[in-house]
Amino acid sequence: MTDEPALTHVRADGAVLMVDVTDKAETSRRASAVATVITRPDVLRLLLAGELPKGEALAVSRVAGIMAAKQTSSLIPLCHPLPLSGATIDFAPGDDRIVITATVKTRGVTGVEMEALTAASVAALTLYDMIKAVDKHVVITDIQVTAKSGGKSGDWTLE
Amino acid sequence: MTDEPALTHVRADGAVLMVDVTDKAETSRRASAVATVITRPDVLRLLLAGELPKGEALAVSRVAGIMAAKQTSSLIPLCHPLPLSGATIDFAPGDDRIVITATVKTRGVTGVEMEALTAASVAALTLYDMIKAVDKHVVITDIQVTAKSGGKSGDWTLE
Amino acid sequence: MTDEPALTHVRADGAVLMVDVTDKAETSRRASAVATVITRPDVLRLLLAGELPKGEALAVSRVAGIMAAKQTSSLIPLCHPLPLSGATIDFAPGDDRIVITATVKTRGVTGVEMEALTAASVAALTLYDMIKAVDKHVVITDIQVTAKSGGKSGDWTLE
Amino acid sequence: MTDEPALTHVRADGAVLMVDVTDKAETSRRASAVATVITRPDVLRLLLAGELPKGEALAVSRVAGIMAAKQTSSLIPLCHPLPLSGATIDFAPGDDRIVITATVKTRGVTGVEMEALTAASVAALTLYDMIKAVDKHVVITDIQVTAKSGGKSGDWTLE
Amino acid sequence: MTDEPALTHVRADGAVLMVDVTDKAETSRRASAVATVITRPDVLRLLLAGELPKGEALAVSRVAGIMAAKQTSSLIPLCHPLPLSGATIDFAPGDDRIVITATVKTRGVTGVEMEALTAASVAALTLYDMIKAVDKHVVITDIQVTAKSGGKSGDWTLE
Amino acid sequence: MTDEPALTHVRADGAVLMVDVTDKAETSRRASAVATVITRPDVLRLLLAGELPKGEALAVSRVAGIMAAKQTSSLIPLCHPLPLSGATIDFAPGDDRIVITATVKTRGVTGVEMEALTAASVAALTLYDMIKAVDKHVVITDIQVTAKSGGKSGDWTLE
Repeated sequence: MTDEPALTHVRADGAVLMVDVTDKAETSRRASAVATVITRPDVLRLLLAGELPKGEALAVSRVAGIMAAKQTSSLIPLCHPLPLSGATIDFAPGDDRIVITATVKTRGVTGVEMEALTAASVAALTLYDMIKAVDKHVVITDIQVTAKSGGKSGDWTLE
Repeated sequence: MTDEPALTHVRADGAVLMVDVTDKAETSRRASAVATVITRPDVLRLLLAGELPKGEALAVSRVAGIMAAKQTSSLIPLCHPLPLSGATIDFAPGDDRIVITATVKTRGVTGVEMEALTAASVAALTLYDMIKAVDKHVVITDIQVTAKSGGKSGDWTLE
Repeated sequence: MTDEPALTHVRADGAVLMVDVTDKAETSRRASAVATVITRPDVLRLLLAGELPKGEALAVSRVAGIMAAKQTSSLIPLCHPLPLSGATIDFAPGDDRIVITATVKTRGVTGVEMEALTAASVAALTLYDMIKAVDKHVVITDIQVTAKSGGKSGDWTLE
Repeated sequence: MTDEPALTHVRADGAVLMVDVTDKAETSRRASAVATVITRPDVLRLLLAGELPKGEALAVSRVAGIMAAKQTSSLIPLCHPLPLSGATIDFAPGDDRIVITATVKTRGVTGVEMEALTAASVAALTLYDMIKAVDKHVVITDIQVTAKSGGKSGDWTLE
Repeated sequence: MTDEPALTHVRADGAVLMVDVTDKAETSRRASAVATVITRPDVLRLLLAGELPKGEALAVSRVAGIMAAKQTSSLIPLCHPLPLSGATIDFAPGDDRIVITATVKTRGVTGVEMEALTAASVAALTLYDMIKAVDKHVVITDIQVTAKSGGKSGDWTLE
Repeated sequence: MTDEPALTHVRADGAVLMVDVTDKAETSRRASAVATVITRPDVLRLLLAGELPKGEALAVSRVAGIMAAKQTSSLIPLCHPLPLSGATIDFAPGDDRIVITATVKTRGVTGVEMEALTAASVAALTLYDMIKAVDKHVVITDIQVTAKSGGKSGDWTLE
């Protein structure tokens, strides 16, 4: 069928490539992505103490996420390098979980979904690292893009 | 309560640190971790074509996962650098999802759970990157350690 | 003699520098470079099996080349960082050798010859790594730029 | 034929892996590799001036090679990370060419051929970068391992 | 008090972020920074021999500084990645000290003070590494920005 | 004079090298280093607020220092890669300055002075980055090793 979707990073001969975006216009772009860390309520309280004077666990996760966003094109083989112009990481704690939202901006020729996803994932892995000794059953889940704006495909928000 | 769990990477004064493992014994260690990518069945077929002559999408994900395992201590701030002695990435496709299993080995002083988790996560993000143009609703889910062996805490398998 | 050539990266006092390109115009630029891996015909057949369902050796080399292109300015001390906008790696096998062609694009202020050369070299080293156990006499040869376009010096092709 | 050579980094199912070396013994290992840069005699004289007070071109190449040796496992996807215990880069100039020899040492579980090859290649690419503006026909050639010692396979020298 | 200074990288809720510079104009920017290495006069003479045929110590420091400038946004967590368009490192030796000046240029949306500071610091640490075996009392001191130009805040020189 | 000190990283012919430590014994080693950031008292108060619920500036500096310690051999050209087994960063604030102490441990064949110095320097640069907008006269000073233990040269403390 001619309108079957095709992988954008794979040529007709099956070879992968970093696709040519030389002639795409530079515009302001933004993407947000989330990741959720599920753990026990008592472990979550240990993490959240990081916002009190006695701890800095969330700060470490935040820094790790921001630094990972800048490494995205070194980690994801076919990603274009982009000059990031902003990045934030936010935490929304629940009873037994904490939702991490990463928002990344650029003025560039491709979107920053992968940068936001990488930031959220590494922030989540950093929390995992700090709590794995007290909870062997931590799970990271629901990593996905929640919103993007800018570029030819326009604005989009996950419903 | 005195037997309350405590974060291993946070000191009594709240400061984070890379904990001292200088005197831990070097032993053979192994860890496996999984990540699941959920997408549409037609998109999954595009990925799986990577095992046929016409595509190499899964190979890219595999290479990205192995290379990311080696970058773990650069990504996760409080992780110790470890000399990895082996790494594999396996794919188990279902109807609308593909389960990625990363297995990492070392002969070192700490476990390799974070290396396995990082490998599985980056392999999943690499698939996400290749299919995001044809499916805006991809989700990465259920990232967790499934087995570990070696070290003082002994063998463990997720039930 | 006043028209003797001079190294562009070395000042009159002998010190090296990353030369100032602040005021050069951003234009679309492209460069291709090759590297040739010489081995035994039976070893070459093992590599080429990578394009059949049973192997992915060439895919690993391709990914390594693309990722190395993005690391060029971290490897070559006096190279400027450039936002790569595209990269491909192609393989042309002969009897006892395989020619690797890397093509890299940017919209930037300097050419991408070094990026294409680095991509071709690392793709070749990756093949070397996979076959060195079965052929101790592998040689990588004829690494050179074959074509470039864009920039003040205009288009050029190796004759 | 059952004694046909097989790629060590590819499993029976065609998947690549970082092979398991967990149980290999740590021994002192050494490898040397060469790369040759061919250019015009007048350009070669510019490079060699780097050993006189007025220039430092060869020093840059030497530093780039040593630093690249330490990045080998980040560049070559299936290479194991190794704690390098020594590295040198030497230059032997001829009429129209300069031969670069890299020697790398480790006390580890795998050989350091790839580290020596990567060092020699990046040292050569660094020279290429400095002379490409004055000679468009530079070629890097004859990259190969010339000697190795240590490990189960014993000492070996290219004849 | 409303005109109290505030940290630009910290939000009202105390969280750090990579601040949004998406809408700042790209202009030519330059910054210079210094670092001073204090050691014994006889040790300094060993370093300076690097400008004579018999040594290349200063060249190593220079290359390390230039390469570090390009890694600034990977080292300093909240720094924006910038496409550097030029970098130089200069040495001014005194009796018992050597002053390192790094000058970095970009055409970008933020200043390059951190890049110049990082280059000067790493160049100084590289000298420290080479002389620490002969002088245990080396000190690196007076690391600061000495001049900047470009951007909204205009030109500035340390008095 | 035969007992003149010589640079350990420079051969008789003037070439630099990564010195051969293959046969040195692995022992537990530790080094501490300091760096001092001098600023205005009102700016220092902004930084220290990072230990209160409303800010995390010191945590960012701490994380940056720990992560930089792990990158030392990528930044300092002739440094050997070492498997760090622990790292801490401490802050001692005064009226107009804050003293950063980095302590790094390894079980390896060379000392970790450079790792401790790099950690202290990058932690200081990270503070500089956060306060440069409110104080153009920040200075980083007195970067030096204060103590080391382990290895053939034994324990040593700066007097």
